[in-house]
This record gives sequence, C-alpha cells and structure tokens, in this order.
Amino acid sequence: MNQMKSVVEDLYPSRVSQKPAILERRDPVVYPSAFGEHVQVSGELLASYEKNGYVSLKNFFSPAEVQDMRDELSKLWAENRDSERKEVIREPASREIRSIFAVHRDNQVFQRLSQHPRLLALVKQILGSDVYIHQSRINYKKGFSGKEFYWHSDFETWHVEDGMPRMRALSCSIALEDNYHYNGPLLLIPGSHKKFVACVGETPEDHYEQSLRKQEYGVPDQDSLQALVEQHGIDAAVGPAGTVTLFDCNIMHGSNGNITPHPRSNVFIVYNSVENRLKAPFSGQKPRPEYIATRD
Amino acid sequence: MNQMKSVVEDLYPSRVSQKPAILERRDPVVYPSAFGEHVQVSGELLASYEKNGYVSLKNFFSPAEVQDMRDELSKLWAENRDSERKEVIREPASREIRSIFAVHRDNQVFQRLSQHPRLLALVKQILGSDVYIHQSRINYKKGFSGKEFYWHSDFETWHVEDGMPRMRALSCSIALEDNYHYNGPLLLIPGSHKKFVACVGETPEDHYEQSLRKQEYGVPDQDSLQALVEQHGIDAAVGPAGTVTLFDCNIMHGSNGNITPHPRSNVFIVYNSVENRLKAPFSGQKPRPEYIATRD
Repeated sequence: MNQMKSVVEDLYPSRVSQKPAILERRDPVVYPSAFGEHVQVSGELLASYEKNGYVSLKNFFSPAEVQDMRDELSKLWAENRDSERKEVIREPASREIRSIFAVHRDNQVFQRLSQHPRLLALVKQILGSDVYIHQSRINYKKGFSGKEFYWHSDFETWHVEDGMPRMRALSCSIALEDNYHYNGPLLLIPGSHKKFVACVGETPEDHYEQSLRKQEYGVPDQDSLQALVEQHGIDAAVGPAGTVTLFDCNIMHGSNGNITPHPRSNVFIVYNSVENRLKAPFSGQKPRPEYIATRD
Repeated sequence: MNQMKSVVEDLYPSRVSQKPAILERRDPVVYPSAFGEHVQVSGELLASYEKNGYVSLKNFFSPAEVQDMRDELSKLWAENRDSERKEVIREPASREIRSIFAVHRDNQVFQRLSQHPRLLALVKQILGSDVYIHQSRINYKKGFSGKEFYWHSDFETWHVEDGMPRMRALSCSIALEDNYHYNGPLLLIPGSHKKFVACVGETPEDHYEQSLRKQEYGVPDQDSLQALVEQHGIDAAVGPAGTVTLFDCNIMHGSNGNITPHPRSNVFIVYNSVENRLKAPFSGQKPRPEYIATRD
C-alpha cells in the first residue's frame, strides 16, 4: 500500500465552515447484494427503505419475546443502580439511569438479540455485506417528564467524532412499549437520508442574527430542517411493543418530549458494514471510547 | 339576604391537603337549555361533548377567515414588540412575545370573533344561559423549540385563584395553523372532566418518596393522572387551520413540546355562564388581575 491510499478523503465535511450546507449523498442506501438473490427480504421492503430511509416492522417480536427483554432491562436497571461503570448514563438532575451502553457485549440476552437471524439477514441485505455492531444501548424514557431529542443525523456525529468514512450503517430500534403519537415517538423526515446537512463548526460571524438559536456542535440549522420538512414531511414511528424500526445512519430524526404517563423503553443496536470500519475521526480529535463506538 | 346565603360553599377544595384526591364532579356538563328546542346545535354533538368533555369542529372557519385572524395576529405582534403593557407576555429567555391577553376587549377583530353568532349559539347551548368572556388571549407557539405544557384542569386554577364557584365555563381554541400529531397539539383525557383532581397544597410529609416529582401549586399528581389515562386514554386535537375545539373547564389537558418547524398559533377564548360569576378566590388570597380573569 502506498502513502496516497492511506489518506481517507472526507466526503462529508461538517463542523468546518461558518455556514451550513446541504450536500448530496455519495453512497448507496441499499447496497448491491453480496448474498445472491434476495431470498429472505422482499424487494418491496428494500424499495421502501431506499426511498424513505427507514422501515417499521410491526410485531417483529412477539409479546413473550418483548416481555423477556423488559425483564432483562429491569434486572440490569436494578443491578446497575449504584454502579459507577461508564456505560451507565444517568439523568443529570436525578441520577436515575437513562441508558446503559454496550449491552450487546456485556449481557447475554442482548448479545443473542443482536445476532437474531431474521434481523441480521435483513441488515446484511440492506448493507450488502457482513456487519458488526458499532454501538448498542438500552434506553428508558420515563413518562410525565421525558425530554425531547432535537433533530440530528447520527452519521454526522459518527463521521466527525468516530471516523466512520461512508454511509453504510443503520440503526435498529426495538420498541419495548407501545409507541403512540403522544408519548414522544421517533420522528423521521423520510427522504432526508439522501442529503447531508453539514453543520456549522464555529460561531458564525453574523452571530447576533442567530442568538436565539441553539448553538451546539452537530446541530443542523433551522433553514435546512425547514427545507427538508417542506419537501418531505414528517413521519412518526408509532406501533405496538415488539415493533422494529430500521433507519439509515443519515436520516434526520428526533423526538418530542413526553408528558404522558406512558414510558418508552427501547433497545438500540447500530450495525455497520465490515467494509466501512472506523478511521481516525474527521474532526482530527481523539476518538470516543470503545463502548460508544467499536473500533476493535 | 341573610348572612348564611352570602357564604359560598367550596364544592371543589384544592391545595388545602397534603394528599391529592379524586372527587366527583357536582355540576352538569351540558346544562338544560334556556332557549327552548336545540334548533342550532345537534343533539349528537351535545352528547359527544357531554361524554368526552370536548368537541373538535373541523373547518369551522374558512381559510379566508383564518388568514384575516393571522394577519391581525401579525399586526398585533408588530405593534406590541416594544410594549410594556402587562397584557403582553414574553418568553423569559428571549423577550419574544408568547401571548397577548384580553384581545376580546382591546382589539376589534378579536372582539367581533368572540361574538361570532354560530360560535356563541353553541357555547350558550352547552352552558344553558347567557355567557360572558372570562379570559381571552392569542398565543404564538413557535417551531423548533416550543415548550411542553403540563397536565392541568383550568377550573382548578380558576376556582382556587379566581373564585369561579361552579363548573359552568368552557374554552374555545381556534387553530390558526394546521395541528399535527407531531407539533405539540392539545392533548386531552376524554371523560376526565367528570372527576376533579384536588391538588396538594403543601409539601407532603412523605416528601422523600416524591422528591423526583414536580411540585408546584395546582399540578395534579402522577397517580391520579395515571388512573385517568388508564381509564380513558388520550386524545389529540389535530386538524387543519380553522378547526375550533371547545373543551370543558375541568377537562385534564396539556401539550408536548414541538421540535418541528411547524409553529402553532391559536386564539383562545374562555366563556363563563352569567350564572357563575366570580366570587372571592377560594384560596383566600387576592384575585388575579382583570385582564386574566374578568370580574366586572
């Protein structure tokens, strides 16, 4: 290998300019099959995923399977109540557990789940290769006071902070409770996965004009969001417990808060193609830890 | 009149105990007609209002009428940009205008709207008497960062803080923008208007058990909300601009935040029966000002 080949071109620069920009996606959404004919996955499902950037599969898991996962989640919650492990993320105000990371690595039940044959076949079909797990976690979003999660593309973060070179990864969210319109379900902008919103990287010169806007790294600007929503609308991933939602790494998504009594727990597994392993972060900074972004 | 008669019994005590309680409603929802036959209002609509505590009337106002109201709202916003009038309520952080109160009193367009014949006929039919306006305001809930509004019964506040003796009032909300499931629409617990959730009035003795719960005056407790939602579910008042939602003064309602680009402005008018004029506040404190609660 010569020196040139080891330099990875940044196809999706973000947080480097003072102005936001909407770039074209330069990668497929559904990759050419590496496994011959699509025996297990319908062409219709793949076409819908390609177009919208996500699919929602109701009753993918049975009530009994969901109950097993919920029991395991409760057990993990209890076991980690006083844990100081870095994988355990807590609410800032209450020290209640919000998420536990790397459950595919540390817990047998979720390890097995992450290798679920039907799920894995679907993921490999979409990404057109073998896959590995980039990140996993279980989330508990409680009722009455669940906080919103602002719009973002996961890929933007994984690219800039973790060094994921191409768009060849997807997230799998398994609903452990019923998701209604009113308890803060996952909101997606269908079709937004075909654009890349490059975020601003430093305080813009015309800061005074934007002082009312939230300014954090990796936050898409309001004009870009407005344009995407005007073109594509907004979908909500509602459905009963056991629903699986697969969504592209670059789809714009978020969720509103939740004042209802209905909590929303879910299992979240990110699969990345083995052809798309992490490089050095494009930010030039040091990579995030292994339990957030697998590098090994 | 003897001394006894001038004492108003408190049928709905709230904020007086350390324990929350669910009391029975002791007033009708739809009052006997004071105007002979129901010529203008269908019995079906009244039955639905009686049962659910609200009705949503799509396309009550035409797009042209809605546009007139929006223009007037924009005009009022511009006129009051630098106003120090107490009727103008601003966002704490940005000084942006959030609401303008008493628009039925101060603005010709909204004064006329509040006397809209078809609307007024419906309100008088439900409340079984002539009515007057207890409160009015226009609200601008902006997109991207609209905040949630936690569950509450308006009557609880109007009773305790304003001295409204009985449940014989209703709110009319006129949507000036399309209300979707995902931009923080009004959420209602249908049927909850037939119970009164008495709120806690001081820090409970078992405070340590509740320390994670929000403790403010007039906030219903989580157990009561949970029970109401388990029994009745949650409805969302979605619909196009021009939709009018009438809801009982005691129905439990709230709204989630709004991360979408879609703002939600509305006009809000509260009608009270002339038979139900305000007394001294049941809190024993001094009444709120006239622009929030009409006493004259």
